[in-house]
Amino acid sequence: MPLQDHHQIVSVDDHLVEHPRVWQDRLPERLKDRGPLIVEEDGKHLWRFDGGMYPTIGLNAVAGKPREEWGMDPVRYEDMIPGCYDPAARVKDMDIDGVQAALCFPSFPGFGGGVFHRSAAKDPELALECVKAWNDFYIDEWCGTAPDRFIPICIAPTWDPELSAAEIRRAAAKGARTVSFPDSPVPLGMPSFHSRTWDPVWQACEETGTVVSLHFGSGSYVPGFSFAATRAIPGEMVIPDAPFAVAITIFATNLMWSSVDLLFSGVLQRHPKLQFSLAEGGIGWIPYILERADFVWERHRYYQPISFDDRPSDLFRQHMWGCFIDDDFGVKNRHAIGVDRICLEIDFPHSDSNWPNSRKRAAEVLADVPDDEVTKIAETNARTMLRFPRTS
Amino acid sequence: MPLQDHHQIVSVDDHLVEHPRVWQDRLPERLKDRGPLIVEEDGKHLWRFDGGMYPTIGLNAVAGKPREEWGMDPVRYEDMIPGCYDPAARVKDMDIDGVQAALCFPSFPGFGGGVFHRSAAKDPELALECVKAWNDFYIDEWCGTAPDRFIPICIAPTWDPELSAAEIRRAAAKGARTVSFPDSPVPLGMPSFHSRTWDPVWQACEETGTVVSLHFGSGSYVPGFSFAATRAIPGEMVIPDAPFAVAITIFATNLMWSSVDLLFSGVLQRHPKLQFSLAEGGIGWIPYILERADFVWERHRYYQPISFDDRPSDLFRQHMWGCFIDDDFGVKNRHAIGVDRICLEIDFPHSDSNWPNSRKRAAEVLADVPDDEVTKIAETNARTMLRFPRTS
Repeated sequence: MPLQDHHQIVSVDDHLVEHPRVWQDRLPERLKDRGPLIVEEDGKHLWRFDGGMYPTIGLNAVAGKPREEWGMDPVRYEDMIPGCYDPAARVKDMDIDGVQAALCFPSFPGFGGGVFHRSAAKDPELALECVKAWNDFYIDEWCGTAPDRFIPICIAPTWDPELSAAEIRRAAAKGARTVSFPDSPVPLGMPSFHSRTWDPVWQACEETGTVVSLHFGSGSYVPGFSFAATRAIPGEMVIPDAPFAVAITIFATNLMWSSVDLLFSGVLQRHPKLQFSLAEGGIGWIPYILERADFVWERHRYYQPISFDDRPSDLFRQHMWGCFIDDDFGVKNRHAIGVDRICLEIDFPHSDSNWPNSRKRAAEVLADVPDDEVTKIAETNARTMLRFPRTS
Repeated sequence: MPLQDHHQIVSVDDHLVEHPRVWQDRLPERLKDRGPLIVEEDGKHLWRFDGGMYPTIGLNAVAGKPREEWGMDPVRYEDMIPGCYDPAARVKDMDIDGVQAALCFPSFPGFGGGVFHRSAAKDPELALECVKAWNDFYIDEWCGTAPDRFIPICIAPTWDPELSAAEIRRAAAKGARTVSFPDSPVPLGMPSFHSRTWDPVWQACEETGTVVSLHFGSGSYVPGFSFAATRAIPGEMVIPDAPFAVAITIFATNLMWSSVDLLFSGVLQRHPKLQFSLAEGGIGWIPYILERADFVWERHRYYQPISFDDRPSDLFRQHMWGCFIDDDFGVKNRHAIGVDRICLEIDFPHSDSNWPNSRKRAAEVLADVPDDEVTKIAETNARTMLRFPRTS
């Protein structure tokens, strides 16, 4: 049986566009004039922050637009459907789409708070308050609008592992189930997941049961030879000579890198309860990468610091969760991944989303999947991972 | 029926270690003292070239060693089995291994000649002669030893597209079936595959029927957050804080990037006969990447320069060939890739190789594959792609 009426779709990857007053409503008075502010320039709405201007990229708010009108240009708020930035309108959009619950990643701060990370070098107090303001906005205002429909997530002051641990604990006490963390801290100028630097973060997550959500791109790294090679040079921004469609196609390679970093890092052995959600990465690549990781572990552990007892593929199935939106090959090979570790994502209002037909498309993708497995993939795996039980 | 005695294994990815006199025997007299030369330092054999010292990495010559003795340290020639650098000994090693024919990539020059590329900025005449010397060595001396056992490949003076086209034509006239080209020219400081810069190369390949072999790493790009981010900064060499096992596991992401670059570049439409061999990248990831490429093409072609009529997955099956050494998941999903586009690789004498059990392992991996498909994968696909017909 495919997707049925009793299945509530729980999405582990959606997005919101911050409304203009998110930071102005919350920052301490002395910081407000330096906080993120929406200004108009050439008829466009832009965020002004930290001496720079940040557009709201059009591709981040395409829900409801025909593909022929998509583009990379900045938009105005009134060019988006209100569900992008208004939680009450979003609930109605989710009802139309047949989606019960959504976990929304930030837009202006970057998926993992990279904008505040970079600004912290100049003004760490402001950066920390901006992180806290986003968490308070999302948990109190956005999720507070419909607590059974929105799953609380937080961001962290990633430039400081101890501050990050403290903010993760503060947000968890307010209800956060997961933290959006950089898919790698290296492009942000920080040590990799192989470093003990991050142990305070992992400890805070383990103690509070906070899942670590790694959304591709959350470390500010755009994959592809024409993108990554130029982006890695600090201060230099070369116009890539490849269409952005290349990066959109291969963004999952970020999460291949992230998961292999973690599988070979020892982090999962030191923190046996730690859980990672690989957000928006698809699942069809997972069996290949796990088979390859096992192959390398079997051959190279005698002379490299990866000589732990655990097979990488076993570690993956104990610590990681994948999700997909439209991945026939992955669904067909779900048993090679682990049916208990696969969730759905909806990606509203981004360009991968099928809104307002997400439920219809999910039913098509899951048409040949047995009922008990559909239940897990569409709903219960996400509820289990995020400790977000059904209320109705 | 699995692999049978009548199947001759044709490998599209092996390696050789250049013997000490490759360049000294061939460079014009006036360039000899600046050409690559083996010297001894602290009991190790090193190449001296272009003001630098280049070790022969131990992992590149592990055939015949137990895994417990593998390492990254430089070795001496007498630490390798002679089949690494002596073509007559190699034929005997191939006989032991049950392998009929091998295509051997360079070692000291880099898989795609990157060492000469970088040296060309200072001394382009020397760099060009070094490229020609390798091609003459491999085609005349190495392949000449056993023309039915070694498949001629060449490298190119990649810093200059017109020179590259001329050298590809020269090598093709001597018998080269394929050119080892960078998996991306971007990390070498050149325009990407999206640029018209490379049209002379593609034209020379198309005219001469020369397949473009893209071996992962041939563009000098090591994947992974801890490797790529540091390597991309010119002149800077930061010690990565991740074990090299991470890079070994995810090296195929290079070829995911390369293939998507090409699928969205328009190159394949402008050069309808051009063929690319994705060397040492495995195959299990191909269905996921092709499904994702089609998805992106369907959604984003209305506003990006990818609005050609061809589905990326169709282009792949007309222009690209994958290969594998030990990829159960890929073999199981061979029909989602295209049985006509899959070849075997042996990777002698590198650490992925199963020597002296390559044939035994291939038989295991192909145990459940029908006879006509085994024939294609083990032998005839490679012979067709490389125009290397059976002689016995």
